[in-house]
Amino acid sequence: MQKESGTPPLRVGIVGYGNLGKGVALAIGQNPDMELVAVFTRRPPEELTAVENAVPYARITDYSADIDVMILCGGSSTDLPEQVLSVSKLFNTVDSFDTHAKIPAYFSQVDEAAKAANTLSLISTGWDPGLFSLARLLGQSVLPQGEEYTFWGKGLSQGHSDAVRRVPGVKNGVQYTIPLESAIEQVRAGATPSLTTADRHRRVCYVVAKPEANLSEIEENIKSMPHYFEPYDTTVHFISDEELRENHSGMPHGGTVFRSGITGNGSRQRIEFGLALESNPEFTASVLVAYARAVGKLAKEGQTGARTVFDIPLGYLSPHAAEELRRTLL
Amino acid sequence: MQKESGTPPLRVGIVGYGNLGKGVALAIGQNPDMELVAVFTRRPPEELTAVENAVPYARITDYSADIDVMILCGGSSTDLPEQVLSVSKLFNTVDSFDTHAKIPAYFSQVDEAAKAANTLSLISTGWDPGLFSLARLLGQSVLPQGEEYTFWGKGLSQGHSDAVRRVPGVKNGVQYTIPLESAIEQVRAGATPSLTTADRHRRVCYVVAKPEANLSEIEENIKSMPHYFEPYDTTVHFISDEELRENHSGMPHGGTVFRSGITGNGSRQRIEFGLALESNPEFTASVLVAYARAVGKLAKEGQTGARTVFDIPLGYLSPHAAEELRRTLL
Repeated sequence: MQKESGTPPLRVGIVGYGNLGKGVALAIGQNPDMELVAVFTRRPPEELTAVENAVPYARITDYSADIDVMILCGGSSTDLPEQVLSVSKLFNTVDSFDTHAKIPAYFSQVDEAAKAANTLSLISTGWDPGLFSLARLLGQSVLPQGEEYTFWGKGLSQGHSDAVRRVPGVKNGVQYTIPLESAIEQVRAGATPSLTTADRHRRVCYVVAKPEANLSEIEENIKSMPHYFEPYDTTVHFISDEELRENHSGMPHGGTVFRSGITGNGSRQRIEFGLALESNPEFTASVLVAYARAVGKLAKEGQTGARTVFDIPLGYLSPHAAEELRRTLL
Repeated sequence: MQKESGTPPLRVGIVGYGNLGKGVALAIGQNPDMELVAVFTRRPPEELTAVENAVPYARITDYSADIDVMILCGGSSTDLPEQVLSVSKLFNTVDSFDTHAKIPAYFSQVDEAAKAANTLSLISTGWDPGLFSLARLLGQSVLPQGEEYTFWGKGLSQGHSDAVRRVPGVKNGVQYTIPLESAIEQVRAGATPSLTTADRHRRVCYVVAKPEANLSEIEENIKSMPHYFEPYDTTVHFISDEELRENHSGMPHGGTVFRSGITGNGSRQRIEFGLALESNPEFTASVLVAYARAVGKLAKEGQTGARTVFDIPLGYLSPHAAEELRRTLL
C-alpha cells in the first residue's frame, strides 16, 4: 500500500445490513485503503448492535459529500430496483443485482439515472453474475470454437431452500445443489457432452417436519415440484431442529466454469475457473468491495453511467499502483 | 457476430512464423471478424509454403495503411525487444514478452515509442504472463488476506529442454514440469502451506543419448544442474530417437493459480484458475488474437502508449457488442 500512502482512504457506505451487508463491513476491514463511513438501514439503527455508525436510510442524502462509493446490499427482487435509482442520484454505486432476465432493462435504467446525475454505477457484480460471467466471456473469446459448462455447488441455494420451506408440513429446511462428479470428470477428460442443468447437478434437502406431518407426502411434494426439483435427482433427509442448526447454518457455495475448446489442427484446450466458498455472502461481499475500489478510481477519472464487470480493467480492483502490478504480478 | 455485420474485419499482421506465429494464423481463421493480411518473415518468404501472404520483414513499412494490429511472434530474448520499438512506430502491436525481470523496463520503452507514434501496444500477454497474471491479481484483490500458489504443468518446458540438450553426450531430449498432486491436494483441502517451487513440482526428462555416451554421467549432470534441476525431484529416462519423435513432439502445458483466503470471521474461500493445454503455442496464440481485437477497438477510441492485460476490460476481447454480452453472459 506504500505507493498510495498519500491517497486518502476510499470512503464507503453500505445500504442494507443483512448477510451481504455484514460481509461488506467485514471485507472493508480487510482493506486498509478503505473506510466504512456509515451503514444505512430501514430498521431502527439501534438494532444494529454490531455497527458503530448505523444511520436511518431516510438520512442518506445528508451524506452526499462524505461517501465516495455506496455498496447496495439489498435483494434483487424489490430492494435494488427501487434503491439504485434514488441512491445513484447522489452516489456512485456498486450492486449485486442477479435477476438474469432483467439485467438489460436494469442496466438501461441505471445508466440513464447515473448519467443524468454524473455518477458511476457498477451493476450485477459478485460471483454469478460477476466473476463467473468474466470466466465465460474469457473462455468464449479465447476459444471461440468450444463448449462451455457451469457447475454450481456444493452450495446452499437460497431460492430452493425457500421453496422447500413453503411445502405444507415443513417447519424448516435447506437445500444443497451438488454438481455431479461424473459430469465434471467427463468435461475434465476433454469430452464435450451435451448436458442440461439437471444432467450436471443433483439436489439434497435437509428438512425439519412439523409434528405429525406426513413425511412421505412432504418428500413427494418436494421431488415433484416443477422446475425446482422435478427434473433433478433429488434426495430428502428428515432431521431435527438441533441437527439443522448445528450442521446446516453455514452458507457454503461455489462452482466451476469450464471452457473446452479446439485450436489449430485439433488441439484440445481447457480453461477452468473454480470457487470453493465456506461463506457465499462473505465472498460476494469481498467481490463487491474490490469493485467499489475500481468504481472509486473510475469515478475520479470522470466516468459516469452504468457499467458491468465486462467494462472494468482488472487492474482497477487492486490497491496497488500499475507499476507495482507489472513488476510483481505479470 | 450479427451486431458487427456492418463493421469491416480487423486487419491483422504477424511478425515471425515459428510455432507461435503458426498458431496465430490458425487462431485468426477461427475468428470471422478478423482477416490475416500478411506474415512478415526474415526467412525467404517462399520457404513459408503453408502461408499465402508471406512478405519479407524488410517490406513491413509498406503495409502501414493496411494493418490494424500487428502480432509480434518472436522470442523474448532478442526478437521482441528489437522489433517492438520499430514496429510500434507504424502499427498497433500485441506481444508475449515473458522475461519477467525485464518487463518494467520493456514497458517503459514501448510506452515511450508508442506514445510518440500515436500507436497502442499491449505487451506480455499469453497465459503466463497473461491470464495467470490476471488470476493472481483477481485473487489478491478479492481476498487480500490469503496465500497464492501457482502450479505449472504437466507441461513441456522449452528452457529446461534446452538445458538438457546442452549436456555432453545428449543427442536430443525434452523435459516435463509436473506439479506434485500431494501439494495441490493440500492447497485444495484449504491448507496454506509454505511451498517453494521445488516443493510444488517435479521434473521428468526423456533423453536420447549419443552412441557410446555414459548414461549415468548424463543423468548425474542433469540432476546436479543448479537452479534448473538441482533442488527438484528429477527423473531421467533414456529413450530412442523414434520414441522421442512419436511420444514427445507435442507441446502440452498448463497449470493452476490458487488463491486461498480468509474472510469475515474465519470463512475459508478459494479461487482456482486452471489451464490444461494440448498445445501451448496454439493456446498462447489464441490469447494474443483475442487481445489483438481489444487493441484494435481501443486504438480506434484513440488510446496510445503501452498497456498490459491489467489495463484491458475483458469485454473488449469479445467480438460481441456490450448489450449482447450483458444479455447472454452476465
